[in-house]
Amino acid sequence: MTYCLGILTQTGLVMAADSRTNAGVDYISTYRKLFDFSIEGDRALFFCTSGNLSVTQSVLALMRQAIAAKSDINLHTLPSLYEIARYVGGIMRHVQDENRPWLEKDGIDSQSTILLGGQIRGTAPELFMIYSQGNFIQASKEKPFLQIGEAKYGKPILDRVLSFHTPIEAAAKCALLSIDSTMISNISVGPPINLVMYEADSFKVRHQLCLNIDAPYLTQIRKQWERCLNEAFEQMPNIDWEHYLSRGSEPLNL
Amino acid sequence: MTYCLGILTQTGLVMAADSRTNAGVDYISTYRKLFDFSIEGDRALFFCTSGNLSVTQSVLALMRQAIAAKSDINLHTLPSLYEIARYVGGIMRHVQDENRPWLEKDGIDSQSTILLGGQIRGTAPELFMIYSQGNFIQASKEKPFLQIGEAKYGKPILDRVLSFHTPIEAAAKCALLSIDSTMISNISVGPPINLVMYEADSFKVRHQLCLNIDAPYLTQIRKQWERCLNEAFEQMPNIDWEHYLSRGSEPLNL
Repeated sequence: MTYCLGILTQTGLVMAADSRTNAGVDYISTYRKLFDFSIEGDRALFFCTSGNLSVTQSVLALMRQAIAAKSDINLHTLPSLYEIARYVGGIMRHVQDENRPWLEKDGIDSQSTILLGGQIRGTAPELFMIYSQGNFIQASKEKPFLQIGEAKYGKPILDRVLSFHTPIEAAAKCALLSIDSTMISNISVGPPINLVMYEADSFKVRHQLCLNIDAPYLTQIRKQWERCLNEAFEQMPNIDWEHYLSRGSEPLNL
Repeated sequence: MTYCLGILTQTGLVMAADSRTNAGVDYISTYRKLFDFSIEGDRALFFCTSGNLSVTQSVLALMRQAIAAKSDINLHTLPSLYEIARYVGGIMRHVQDENRPWLEKDGIDSQSTILLGGQIRGTAPELFMIYSQGNFIQASKEKPFLQIGEAKYGKPILDRVLSFHTPIEAAAKCALLSIDSTMISNISVGPPINLVMYEADSFKVRHQLCLNIDAPYLTQIRKQWERCLNEAFEQMPNIDWEHYLSRGSEPLNL
């Protein structure tokens, strides 16, 4: 599996991804899932990919090919993130069309999902999730993050901590904690973690990193988070059993 | 959906369940999913159910019927939790056999999973998970909790906080926090929350409760947990971008 997320805040964008892929427990491998197609000064453009690796790699290859061939329509010429989302959705449909019948014959899932985040000069930063079917949705102030892949383990921390007004540096930390929580609970998500933090209107990638399993920062936040959680847990008030018993809830017995 | 969990600790057993069932967003309802079949002084016996409601209700009905009919083999005569797990698995197979072909015709999922926890005089407390297929697994010191239904959102807190040596009162709080985290991130899991805390060798149900959405204790732990998480989050060290950049991780661009 995979876990990637994008966070859109007032002051920028965070995109993060794990690197584990697997086709069964005996074929676990490491692949990059976060890609930067930015042009400094003109556009910031990041993609995270999940699902069938052959499909997402084909989509990336076709996008790169169009740039290299200087096609009229490519990631570097399209005038808005919305148009780019449509373009990527179209490539996704093409790749699905070509491969899906063959994959289905052997019961192989061709589903793939892509996160697209960035900013084009003259527009605001935006974040999209492009489905296998080529359609897409967009993050909003009310729902400032989008997740793909193994998303459930890492959602509670985002729900409790994150909003559109979270400072971008804090959003980046939150993304790392969300991925780390997922890695602890699910072995199909694994390091290295790639992360990029893009400051709105900078049109330059100033902050990116790749954290391996033994990265001191990862160890540090993991230990500190675990200690804080345990301390918080110990402070939880005791259950007042009498009170709730006396409220006469229905007996549980048969 | 549903979220139920059982926790086996050195000093007892905790079982907890939400109460929401749904068959599509326009048919959301509330059903009990935690059931007590204990006999004071002889055996503690609790079940949590998830999956197809008609299947789990049939399993419960057949178990009750056998007790009422004083059948030779029933939940109150079997000599061990292992034998009870086999017995319940057998009933599950029977109910699946009867219903599955009809459900499959209309693409309806008959999958159901049951947690069984308890203690029979002369044996130690045990916790089992019985699958749709009638087979089952057992909790251990190394893996002291079992979850059924919508289990992923609530797993990180269990992974970080819980062990076989956690005091039982703390395990009960942990179960509530795990369910509350799930309710916040997923509307298909909802109140009231039923919870039972059984002290080993007591053969008596002294602690059980039913928390509605407006239960002051639930509001209190939810707010306090959220505040603690946010405080913990604010204490996280800043990311040392320079350090990880200078380590020369592969550039992300195409």
